[in-house]
Amino acid sequence: MSRGYFFSLDGLDGAGKTTQCQLLAEWLRRQGYQVVMCRDPGGTPVGERLRELLLGGCEMDVITELLLFMASRAQLVAEVIRPALARGEIVVVDRFLLASVVYQGYAGGLPPERIWELGRWATGDTLPDVTFVLDLPAEQVSQRKARTADNFERRGLDFLRRVREGFLQEARRCRDKMIVVDATRTIAEVQADLQREVSLVLSRPSGA
Amino acid sequence: MSRGYFFSLDGLDGAGKTTQCQLLAEWLRRQGYQVVMCRDPGGTPVGERLRELLLGGCEMDVITELLLFMASRAQLVAEVIRPALARGEIVVVDRFLLASVVYQGYAGGLPPERIWELGRWATGDTLPDVTFVLDLPAEQVSQRKARTADNFERRGLDFLRRVREGFLQEARRCRDKMIVVDATRTIAEVQADLQREVSLVLSRPSGA
Repeated sequence: MSRGYFFSLDGLDGAGKTTQCQLLAEWLRRQGYQVVMCRDPGGTPVGERLRELLLGGCEMDVITELLLFMASRAQLVAEVIRPALARGEIVVVDRFLLASVVYQGYAGGLPPERIWELGRWATGDTLPDVTFVLDLPAEQVSQRKARTADNFERRGLDFLRRVREGFLQEARRCRDKMIVVDATRTIAEVQADLQREVSLVLSRPSGA
Repeated sequence: MSRGYFFSLDGLDGAGKTTQCQLLAEWLRRQGYQVVMCRDPGGTPVGERLRELLLGGCEMDVITELLLFMASRAQLVAEVIRPALARGEIVVVDRFLLASVVYQGYAGGLPPERIWELGRWATGDTLPDVTFVLDLPAEQVSQRKARTADNFERRGLDFLRRVREGFLQEARRCRDKMIVVDATRTIAEVQADLQREVSLVLSRPSGA
Protein backbone atom coordinates (compact mmCIF):
# COMPACT_ATOMS: atom_id res chain seq x y z
CA MET A 1 0.00 0.00 0.00
CA SER A 2 1.62 3.24 -1.12
CA ARG A 3 -0.67 5.66 0.73
CA GLY A 4 -2.84 5.28 3.81
CA TYR A 5 -6.22 6.81 4.56
CA PHE A 6 -6.98 10.14 6.16
CA PHE A 7 -10.18 10.79 8.15
CA SER A 8 -11.14 13.92 10.06
CA LEU A 9 -14.02 14.57 12.46
CA ASP A 10 -15.39 18.06 12.77
CA GLY A 11 -18.38 19.93 14.10
CA LEU A 12 -19.27 22.22 16.98
CA ASP A 13 -17.45 21.73 20.26
CA GLY A 14 -19.50 19.42 22.42
CA ALA A 15 -20.68 17.28 19.50
CA GLY A 16 -18.49 14.41 20.73
CA LYS A 17 -15.59 14.60 18.26
CA THR A 18 -12.85 13.61 20.68
CA THR A 19 -14.71 10.58 22.05
CA GLN A 20 -15.69 9.43 18.56
CA CYS A 21 -12.10 9.83 17.29
CA GLN A 22 -10.82 7.65 20.14
CA LEU A 23 -13.45 4.96 19.59
CA LEU A 24 -12.81 4.95 15.86
CA ALA A 25 -9.06 4.64 16.33
CA GLU A 26 -9.50 1.76 18.82
CA TRP A 27 -11.87 -0.06 16.47
CA LEU A 28 -9.44 0.32 13.55
CA ARG A 29 -6.55 -0.95 15.67
CA ARG A 30 -8.58 -4.00 16.72
CA GLN A 31 -8.95 -4.71 13.01
CA GLY A 32 -5.17 -4.72 12.64
CA TYR A 33 -4.60 -1.27 11.12
CA GLN A 34 -1.78 1.04 12.16
CA VAL A 35 -3.54 4.20 13.30
CA VAL A 36 -2.24 7.68 14.09
CA MET A 37 -4.68 9.83 16.06
CA CYS A 38 -4.05 13.53 16.53
CA ARG A 39 -5.76 16.87 17.03
CA ASP A 40 -5.78 20.12 15.07
CA PRO A 41 -4.67 22.60 16.29
CA GLY A 42 -1.93 20.71 18.13
CA GLY A 43 -0.30 17.34 17.65
CA THR A 44 3.30 18.65 17.41
CA PRO A 45 5.47 20.66 19.84
CA VAL A 46 4.91 23.87 17.82
CA GLY A 47 1.23 23.05 17.32
CA GLU A 48 0.56 22.50 21.01
CA ARG A 49 2.06 25.90 21.81
CA LEU A 50 -0.12 27.48 19.14
CA ARG A 51 -3.17 25.64 20.48
CA GLU A 52 -2.52 27.18 23.89
CA LEU A 53 -2.21 30.63 22.34
CA LEU A 54 -5.36 30.18 20.22
CA LEU A 55 -7.64 28.80 22.90
CA GLY A 56 -6.20 30.93 25.71
CA GLY A 57 -8.35 33.98 25.15
CA CYS A 58 -5.56 36.26 23.85
CA GLU A 59 -7.11 39.09 21.80
CA MET A 60 -6.37 38.75 18.10
CA ASP A 61 -7.57 39.70 14.64
CA VAL A 62 -9.42 37.01 12.69
CA ILE A 63 -6.66 36.91 10.03
CA THR A 64 -4.04 36.35 12.74
CA GLU A 65 -6.20 33.57 14.13
CA LEU A 66 -6.55 31.94 10.72
CA LEU A 67 -2.80 32.10 10.05
CA LEU A 68 -2.04 30.49 13.42
CA PHE A 69 -4.49 27.65 12.78
CA MET A 70 -2.91 27.19 9.36
CA ALA A 71 0.61 27.19 10.82
CA SER A 72 -0.30 24.49 13.33
CA ARG A 73 -1.95 22.48 10.55
CA ALA A 74 1.01 22.84 8.17
CA GLN A 75 3.31 21.54 10.89
CA LEU A 76 0.97 18.65 11.73
CA VAL A 77 0.93 17.60 8.08
CA ALA A 78 4.71 17.88 7.65
CA GLU A 79 5.64 16.18 10.91
CA VAL A 80 2.88 13.63 11.50
CA ILE A 81 0.22 13.15 8.82
CA ARG A 82 2.26 13.01 5.60
CA PRO A 83 4.83 10.54 7.05
CA ALA A 84 2.03 8.32 8.43
CA LEU A 85 0.19 8.27 5.09
CA ALA A 86 3.46 7.48 3.31
CA ARG A 87 3.85 4.46 5.62
CA GLY A 88 0.37 3.33 4.58
CA GLU A 89 -1.20 4.03 7.96
CA ILE A 90 -4.62 5.44 8.84
CA VAL A 91 -4.76 8.97 10.21
CA VAL A 92 -7.71 10.10 12.34
CA VAL A 93 -7.73 13.82 13.15
CA ASP A 94 -9.89 15.71 15.62
CA ARG A 95 -10.76 18.75 13.39
CA PHE A 96 -8.94 19.90 10.26
CA LEU A 97 -9.12 22.51 7.50
CA LEU A 98 -12.94 22.54 7.39
CA ALA A 99 -12.92 24.02 10.91
CA SER A 100 -11.06 27.12 9.65
CA VAL A 101 -13.37 27.45 6.66
CA VAL A 102 -16.32 27.48 9.04
CA TYR A 103 -15.02 29.33 12.13
CA GLN A 104 -12.87 32.03 10.48
CA GLY A 105 -14.87 31.97 7.24
CA TYR A 106 -18.64 31.51 7.69
CA ALA A 107 -18.64 32.73 11.31
CA GLY A 108 -15.57 35.01 11.25
CA GLY A 109 -16.24 36.86 8.01
CA LEU A 110 -13.25 35.80 5.87
CA PRO A 111 -14.01 34.41 2.38
CA PRO A 112 -14.37 30.58 2.62
CA GLU A 113 -12.84 30.04 -0.85
CA ARG A 114 -9.72 31.99 0.19
CA ILE A 115 -9.38 29.76 3.26
CA TRP A 116 -9.68 26.56 1.21
CA GLU A 117 -7.05 27.86 -1.16
CA LEU A 118 -4.61 28.84 1.60
CA GLY A 119 -5.24 25.51 3.32
CA ARG A 120 -4.51 23.50 0.19
CA TRP A 121 -1.22 25.37 -0.15
CA ALA A 122 -0.26 25.10 3.53
CA THR A 123 -0.89 21.36 3.59
CA GLY A 124 0.54 20.63 0.14
CA ASP A 125 -2.91 19.29 -0.80
CA THR A 126 -2.86 16.72 1.99
CA LEU A 127 -6.59 16.69 2.69
CA PRO A 128 -8.86 14.10 4.34
CA ASP A 129 -10.34 11.31 2.23
CA VAL A 130 -13.49 11.85 4.25
CA THR A 131 -14.50 14.49 6.81
CA PHE A 132 -17.30 13.56 9.18
CA VAL A 133 -19.41 16.49 10.35
CA LEU A 134 -20.93 15.66 13.74
CA ASP A 135 -24.08 17.73 13.62
CA LEU A 136 -25.98 19.13 16.58
CA PRO A 137 -28.39 22.07 16.90
CA ALA A 138 -26.57 25.10 18.31
CA GLU A 139 -28.95 25.26 21.30
CA GLN A 140 -27.92 21.79 22.40
CA VAL A 141 -24.23 22.64 22.18
CA SER A 142 -24.51 25.66 24.37
CA GLN A 143 -26.18 23.56 27.06
CA ARG A 144 -23.59 20.78 26.85
CA LYS A 145 -20.65 23.18 26.92
CA ALA A 146 -21.94 25.94 29.16
CA ARG A 147 -19.45 25.25 31.91
CA THR A 148 -16.36 24.27 29.94
CA ALA A 149 -16.58 26.90 27.21
CA ASP A 150 -13.27 27.96 25.64
CA ASN A 151 -12.43 31.08 23.70
CA PHE A 152 -14.53 30.06 20.69
CA GLU A 153 -17.61 28.69 22.34
CA ARG A 154 -18.09 31.72 24.57
CA ARG A 155 -19.30 33.75 21.61
CA GLY A 156 -22.96 33.01 22.04
CA LEU A 157 -25.78 31.23 20.29
CA ASP A 158 -25.76 33.40 17.20
CA PHE A 159 -22.14 32.55 16.54
CA LEU A 160 -22.82 28.83 17.08
CA ARG A 161 -25.69 28.96 14.58
CA ARG A 162 -23.47 30.52 11.92
CA VAL A 163 -20.88 27.82 12.59
CA ARG A 164 -23.42 25.00 12.29
CA GLU A 165 -24.86 26.48 9.10
CA GLY A 166 -21.33 26.72 7.67
CA PHE A 167 -20.62 23.06 8.36
CA LEU A 168 -23.89 22.00 6.72
CA GLN A 169 -23.40 24.22 3.69
CA GLU A 170 -19.88 22.96 3.04
CA ALA A 171 -21.06 19.37 3.49
CA ARG A 172 -23.76 19.93 0.87
CA ARG A 173 -21.18 21.45 -1.47
CA CYS A 174 -18.68 18.56 -1.11
CA ARG A 175 -20.84 15.46 -0.88
CA ASP A 176 -18.05 13.17 -2.09
CA LYS A 177 -15.65 14.20 0.72
CA MET A 178 -17.92 15.08 3.65
CA ILE A 179 -20.56 13.11 5.53
CA VAL A 180 -22.98 14.65 8.01
CA VAL A 181 -23.67 12.46 11.03
CA ASP A 182 -26.56 13.17 13.41
CA ALA A 183 -24.78 13.67 16.74
CA THR A 184 -27.91 14.04 18.85
CA ARG A 185 -28.02 10.23 19.16
CA THR A 186 -26.08 7.98 21.58
CA ILE A 187 -22.31 7.61 21.36
CA ALA A 188 -22.72 4.01 20.15
CA GLU A 189 -25.16 4.96 17.38
CA VAL A 190 -22.88 7.72 16.09
CA GLN A 191 -19.86 5.42 16.23
CA ALA A 192 -21.72 2.71 14.29
CA ASP A 193 -22.33 5.21 11.48
CA LEU A 194 -18.67 6.22 11.40
CA GLN A 195 -17.49 2.61 11.32
CA ARG A 196 -19.85 1.74 8.48
CA GLU A 197 -18.67 4.70 6.37
CA VAL A 198 -15.01 4.10 7.14
CA SER A 199 -15.37 0.43 6.15
CA LEU A 200 -16.74 1.52 2.78
CA VAL A 201 -13.74 3.81 2.18
CA LEU A 202 -11.23 1.14 3.27
CA SER A 203 -12.73 -1.33 0.81
CA ARG A 204 -11.83 1.06 -2.05
CA PRO A 205 -8.27 1.47 -3.38
CA SER A 206 -6.46 4.17 -1.38
CA GLY A 207 -5.99 7.87 -2.25
CA ALA A 208 -3.04 9.13 -4.26
CA MET B 1 -3.34 64.65 7.20
CA SER B 2 -5.49 61.59 6.58
CA ARG B 3 -2.73 58.97 6.50
CA GLY B 4 0.74 58.89 7.99
CA TYR B 5 3.93 57.42 6.60
CA PHE B 6 5.25 53.89 6.92
CA PHE B 7 8.98 53.06 6.81
CA SER B 8 10.64 49.70 7.36
CA LEU B 9 14.29 48.77 7.76
CA ASP B 10 15.44 45.36 6.67
CA GLY B 11 18.60 43.43 5.89
CA LEU B 12 20.74 40.72 7.42
CA ASP B 13 20.91 40.51 11.21
CA GLY B 14 23.91 42.50 12.36
CA ALA B 15 23.50 45.19 9.70
CA GLY B 16 22.42 47.68 12.36
CA LYS B 17 18.65 47.79 11.77
CA THR B 18 17.62 48.19 15.40
CA THR B 19 20.09 51.02 16.12
CA GLN B 20 19.15 52.81 12.91
CA CYS B 21 15.42 52.47 13.65
CA GLN B 22 15.92 54.04 17.06
CA LEU B 23 18.03 56.91 15.72
CA LEU B 24 15.54 57.56 12.94
CA ALA B 25 12.59 57.58 15.35
CA GLU B 26 14.40 59.98 17.70
CA TRP B 27 15.30 62.31 14.83
CA LEU B 28 11.70 62.34 13.59
CA ARG B 29 10.40 63.07 17.10
CA ARG B 30 12.84 65.97 17.46
CA GLN B 31 11.25 67.36 14.30
CA GLY B 32 7.83 67.24 15.96
CA TYR B 33 6.39 64.10 14.37
CA GLN B 34 4.39 61.50 16.28
CA VAL B 35 6.35 58.28 15.74
CA VAL B 36 5.47 54.67 16.46
CA MET B 37 8.45 52.31 16.46
CA CYS B 38 7.97 48.56 16.52
CA ARG B 39 9.51 45.29 15.44
CA ASP B 40 8.34 42.45 13.23
CA PRO B 41 7.91 39.74 14.39
CA GLY B 42 6.62 41.13 17.67
CA GLY B 43 5.16 44.45 18.72
CA THR B 44 1.91 43.02 20.16
CA PRO B 45 1.21 40.51 22.96
CA VAL B 46 0.48 37.73 20.42
CA GLY B 47 3.38 38.81 18.24
CA GLU B 48 5.91 38.73 21.06
CA ARG B 49 4.88 35.17 21.91
CA LEU B 50 5.27 34.21 18.27
CA ARG B 51 8.65 35.93 18.13
CA GLU B 52 9.81 33.77 21.05
CA LEU B 53 8.55 30.65 19.29
CA LEU B 54 10.16 31.63 15.96
CA LEU B 55 13.57 32.62 17.27
CA GLY B 56 13.69 29.96 19.98
CA GLY B 57 15.08 27.18 17.85
CA CYS B 58 11.91 25.01 17.81
CA GLU B 59 12.04 22.68 14.78
CA MET B 60 9.49 23.64 12.14
CA ASP B 61 8.66 23.38 8.46
CA VAL B 62 9.37 26.47 6.34
CA ILE B 63 5.63 26.89 5.57
CA THR B 64 4.83 26.83 9.31
CA GLU B 65 7.54 29.42 9.83
CA LEU B 66 6.15 31.65 7.09
CA LEU B 67 2.60 31.43 8.45
CA LEU B 68 3.78 32.38 11.95
CA PHE B 69 5.68 35.40 10.65
CA MET B 70 2.56 36.38 8.68
CA ALA B 71 0.34 35.94 11.75
CA SER B 72 2.56 38.18 13.85
CA ARG B 73 2.61 40.75 11.04
CA ALA B 74 -1.17 40.66 10.52
CA GLN B 75 -1.65 41.35 14.22
CA LEU B 76 0.94 44.15 14.22
CA VAL B 77 -0.88 45.83 11.33
CA ALA B 78 -4.34 45.45 12.88
CA GLU B 79 -3.35 46.48 16.39
CA VAL B 80 -0.55 49.03 15.90
CA ILE B 81 0.34 50.10 12.36
CA ARG B 82 -3.06 50.72 10.77
CA PRO B 83 -4.38 52.75 13.74
CA ALA B 84 -1.16 54.82 13.83
CA LEU B 85 -1.33 55.56 10.10
CA ALA B 86 -4.99 56.50 10.46
CA ARG B 87 -3.98 59.03 13.13
CA GLY B 88 -1.50 60.50 10.64
CA GLU B 89 1.58 59.30 12.54
CA ILE B 90 4.87 57.93 11.25
CA VAL B 91 5.52 54.22 11.67
CA VAL B 92 9.09 52.87 11.73
CA VAL B 93 9.33 49.07 11.73
CA ASP B 94 12.36 46.88 12.32
CA ARG B 95 11.80 44.34 9.49
CA PHE B 96 8.56 43.69 7.60
CA LEU B 97 7.14 41.61 4.73
CA LEU B 98 10.32 41.80 2.65
CA ALA B 99 12.06 39.71 5.33
CA SER B 100 9.67 36.80 4.70
CA VAL B 101 10.06 37.12 0.95
CA VAL B 102 13.81 36.82 1.39
CA TYR B 103 14.22 34.39 4.32
CA GLN B 104 11.40 31.92 3.58
CA GLY B 105 11.42 32.66 -0.15
CA TYR B 106 14.89 33.22 -1.66
CA ALA B 107 16.70 31.38 1.14
CA GLY B 108 13.95 29.00 2.28
CA GLY B 109 12.75 27.78 -1.09
CA LEU B 110 9.13 29.06 -1.14
CA PRO B 111 8.02 31.08 -4.20
CA PRO B 112 8.65 34.82 -3.51
CA GLU B 113 5.58 35.88 -5.51
CA ARG B 114 3.35 33.62 -3.36
CA ILE B 115 4.78 35.26 -0.22
CA TRP B 116 4.13 38.79 -1.52
CA GLU B 117 0.59 37.79 -2.36
CA LEU B 118 -0.10 36.22 1.04
CA GLY B 119 1.49 39.22 2.75
CA ARG B 120 -0.66 41.70 0.87
CA TRP B 121 -3.72 39.76 1.96
CA ALA B 122 -2.61 39.32 5.58
CA THR B 123 -1.85 43.03 5.96
CA GLY B 124 -4.83 44.30 3.97
CA ASP B 125 -2.32 45.95 1.61
CA THR B 126 -0.77 47.96 4.43
CA LEU B 127 2.78 48.05 3.07
CA PRO B 128 5.69 50.42 3.73
CA ASP B 129 6.00 53.61 1.68
CA VAL B 130 9.72 52.87 1.65
CA THR B 131 11.76 49.88 2.79
CA PHE B 132 15.44 50.52 3.48
CA VAL B 133 17.69 47.54 2.85
CA LEU B 134 20.79 47.82 5.02
CA ASP B 135 23.30 45.97 2.92
CA LEU B 136 26.41 44.13 4.16
CA PRO B 137 28.48 41.33 2.64
CA ALA B 138 27.51 38.00 4.22
CA GLU B 139 31.07 37.43 5.47
CA GLN B 140 30.96 40.59 7.52
CA VAL B 141 27.64 39.62 9.10
CA SER B 142 28.85 36.27 10.26
CA GLN B 143 31.80 37.95 12.02
CA ARG B 144 29.61 40.60 13.68
CA LYS B 145 27.03 38.10 14.84
CA ALA B 146 29.16 35.07 15.58
CA ARG B 147 28.51 35.15 19.29
CA THR B 148 24.89 36.30 19.42
CA ALA B 149 23.53 34.20 16.56
CA ASP B 150 19.84 33.25 16.79
CA ASN B 151 17.94 30.50 15.04
CA PHE B 152 18.21 32.12 11.62
CA GLU B 153 21.76 33.32 11.63
CA ARG B 154 23.19 29.98 12.71
CA ARG B 155 22.56 28.57 9.24
CA GLY B 156 25.94 29.40 7.80
CA LEU B 157 27.53 31.59 5.21
CA ASP B 158 25.80 30.01 2.25
CA PHE B 159 22.41 30.80 3.74
CA LEU B 160 23.47 34.39 4.50
CA ARG B 161 24.60 34.83 0.90
CA ARG B 162 21.24 33.68 -0.46
CA VAL B 163 19.53 36.09 1.93
CA ARG B 164 21.68 39.02 0.86
CA GLU B 165 21.18 38.21 -2.81
CA GLY B 166 17.41 38.05 -2.20
CA PHE B 167 17.36 41.50 -0.63
CA LEU B 168 19.34 42.99 -3.51
CA GLN B 169 17.23 41.30 -6.18
CA GLU B 170 13.96 42.51 -4.66
CA ALA B 171 15.37 46.00 -4.27
CA ARG B 172 16.30 46.05 -7.96
CA ARG B 173 12.80 44.85 -8.83
CA CYS B 174 11.00 47.50 -6.72
CA ARG B 175 13.13 50.62 -7.09
CA ASP B 176 10.23 52.95 -6.24
CA LYS B 177 9.59 51.30 -2.85
CA MET B 178 13.02 50.05 -1.73
CA ILE B 179 16.32 51.77 -1.18
CA VAL B 180 19.62 49.93 -0.65
CA VAL B 181 21.91 51.58 1.91
CA ASP B 182 25.56 50.61 2.28
CA ALA B 183 25.75 49.43 5.89
CA THR B 184 29.51 48.86 5.96
CA ARG B 185 29.95 52.54 6.86
CA THR B 186 29.66 54.22 10.28
CA ILE B 187 26.35 54.43 12.13
CA ALA B 188 26.27 58.20 11.55
CA GLU B 189 26.86 57.88 7.80
CA VAL B 190 24.11 55.29 7.41
CA GLN B 191 21.73 57.38 9.51
CA ALA B 192 22.43 60.49 7.40
CA ASP B 193 21.36 58.55 4.29
CA LEU B 194 18.14 57.39 5.94
CA GLN B 195 17.30 60.89 7.14
CA ARG B 196 17.87 62.37 3.70
CA GLU B 197 15.62 59.80 2.01
CA VAL B 198 12.92 60.06 4.67
CA SER B 199 12.91 63.86 4.30
CA LEU B 200 12.26 63.46 0.59
CA VAL B 201 9.27 61.17 1.24
CA LEU B 202 7.87 63.46 3.93
CA SER B 203 7.98 66.43 1.55
CA ARG B 204 5.61 64.57 -0.81
CA PRO B 205 1.85 64.24 -0.15
CA SER B 206 1.18 61.14 2.00
CA GLY B 207 0.12 57.65 0.85
CA ALA B 208 -3.52 56.66 0.50
